[in-house]
Amino acid sequence: MDLDLDRDGAALTAQLVDIPSVSGEEGPLADAVEAALRSLPHLRTQRDGHTIVARTELGRPERVILAGHLDTVPVAGNLPSRAEGSRLFGCGTTDMKSGVAVQLRLAAHLTSPARDVTYVFYDCEEVAADRNGLLRLSRQSPELLAGDFAVLMEPSDGQIEGGCQGTLRAEVTAAGQRAHTARSWMGRNAIHEAGDILGVLRSYTPREPDIDGLRYHEGLNAVAIRGGVAGNVVPDECAVTVNYRFAPDRDAKQATEFVRSLFSAWPVTVLDVAEGARPGLGHPAAAAFVTAVGGSPRAKLGWTDVARFAALGIPAVNYGPGISELAHTAGEYVETERIAECEARLRSWLGA
Amino acid sequence: MDLDLDRDGAALTAQLVDIPSVSGEEGPLADAVEAALRSLPHLRTQRDGHTIVARTELGRPERVILAGHLDTVPVAGNLPSRAEGSRLFGCGTTDMKSGVAVQLRLAAHLTSPARDVTYVFYDCEEVAADRNGLLRLSRQSPELLAGDFAVLMEPSDGQIEGGCQGTLRAEVTAAGQRAHTARSWMGRNAIHEAGDILGVLRSYTPREPDIDGLRYHEGLNAVAIRGGVAGNVVPDECAVTVNYRFAPDRDAKQATEFVRSLFSAWPVTVLDVAEGARPGLGHPAAAAFVTAVGGSPRAKLGWTDVARFAALGIPAVNYGPGISELAHTAGEYVETERIAECEARLRSWLGA
Repeated sequence: MDLDLDRDGAALTAQLVDIPSVSGEEGPLADAVEAALRSLPHLRTQRDGHTIVARTELGRPERVILAGHLDTVPVAGNLPSRAEGSRLFGCGTTDMKSGVAVQLRLAAHLTSPARDVTYVFYDCEEVAADRNGLLRLSRQSPELLAGDFAVLMEPSDGQIEGGCQGTLRAEVTAAGQRAHTARSWMGRNAIHEAGDILGVLRSYTPREPDIDGLRYHEGLNAVAIRGGVAGNVVPDECAVTVNYRFAPDRDAKQATEFVRSLFSAWPVTVLDVAEGARPGLGHPAAAAFVTAVGGSPRAKLGWTDVARFAALGIPAVNYGPGISELAHTAGEYVETERIAECEARLRSWLGA
Repeated sequence: MDLDLDRDGAALTAQLVDIPSVSGEEGPLADAVEAALRSLPHLRTQRDGHTIVARTELGRPERVILAGHLDTVPVAGNLPSRAEGSRLFGCGTTDMKSGVAVQLRLAAHLTSPARDVTYVFYDCEEVAADRNGLLRLSRQSPELLAGDFAVLMEPSDGQIEGGCQGTLRAEVTAAGQRAHTARSWMGRNAIHEAGDILGVLRSYTPREPDIDGLRYHEGLNAVAIRGGVAGNVVPDECAVTVNYRFAPDRDAKQATEFVRSLFSAWPVTVLDVAEGARPGLGHPAAAAFVTAVGGSPRAKLGWTDVARFAALGIPAVNYGPGISELAHTAGEYVETERIAECEARLRSWLGA
């Protein structure tokens, strides 16, 4: 299954989509990508598992990274790909093989870019974080990810989404004392007590900080609540799981301290925390990127793998031809002209 | 295994305890009780499953009922029975074979009571209501339960506990709208909304009505709460299960209306409701009972099988030698002198 990198982005996307690559089963697609890249003499291509890294080594003063994942969510009766008017339908069209097609086209045709480029194609983005190929690479071979600025080609509707917000989940627990409900005054109802925890959530006012010119918007929500012993027992415990989405001017420690201080009346157990990423639009390579791509960059509110670049000290943005709202839906598609537009803008940035 | 009804109440209790009768396995004990009663010519004895009913038929103007269950919770390494000082230990000593021993002693020795007496020994009280022998009897042969007043010989610390409160469980549901927590303002958090349901519970003031001279004490508690879709989703539903314990001046319909009106802002689903029982202490047989037993009757706050008599129009009280706090514990015991005291007081009432 040879990939033809001379075909246009839409045709190449269709070819990529027609090689199924559900998370964990990226082998055939990774083989095809590796073979196509190894045939290009201006790139140095390496492989780790089903993750491929190809780099120009031109000694440019700046190095930028274009990264995308090869895997998709499970196929939902939406293969093979199907063109309909201006749209290409199929599993992975929008998330994110159209972005991968742009990467491959640029890798093949930009033989002498103005900035050195590292192309990263990784596996297992759509599953548990500990299987993520970009995380594995960042731990085992961080030198392969060295650079000044990174673009993650996740679906972003052809607009720049800068950085990402962090996310923290914690359990806040109200305690009580058991009693028979026929004599409830002998006990203390932990579920009733949890009303105060919900009160804190309801009176919370989100921060909306400007960071590098982008406006973020935090959030604090109960995402689960559980309590109850039996139908005739005053319950002695009620646990509320909260999710704090925090702007990238706060790190994990600050986010944790904020949640602990907000719920200082109760025991708080942090379940997990992932830091966000600053957009880094002040960097010269980023500024040139914004100029080349155009539009008004907006803040990325959800957490994405740009945070892994941030953890390595590399500012990063999300920018890709896919349509974010269609990700993970059976009806996902991509507007084919958006693929060509994305490629053209990145080419003008990298080739300038 | 012949029961010797001439032995004192404590010895008879030990004999009953040493015939294990966990719910569903009452056969051998029911056989022994039936045989002992059938040997008594002044009683008319009938059996339905493992439930035995024995009646005097003296044509007295009043008929009273003494009822007790034969079954116990599962044995917890506490058999055979063991006497220690003034206490008799073992599974069922307090709940409620000491009460059954008093019934059997009275049945054997009160050959010509001043009031006709119906002795009921039933099965499966400690398990799901639909297996309850008294319920079965009240549906299939209500004539066997006819009477003016009933005494349920459940553990009541040797005091009269009048009637019982009803119990209602309902689910109150807050609705919301799902959204990704990174853009939570696109949704509406149902768990946060449930804070208002908890607010209603917290501002509830219980009624404490006097009924037939006894003071009841209602209660309204959350006994369960659940909500949550995923760790990154604003949840669209949160369900609170509430348990309303209501005094016996309210029936099921009134209790339901009260709960619905309290939570009129939300959908309310009634899960189950069991009416309570008025103490009926105004009835002449009951007044004589109170005089004979002495002490200050108190209201029964928990739900018991006296409600089944109330459903048949028969006022009923709880009165037995067992210690209510020890019911269902591995260390349960009964004070043996309390057994004799209970028997003597009932004898003076019935024989008068």
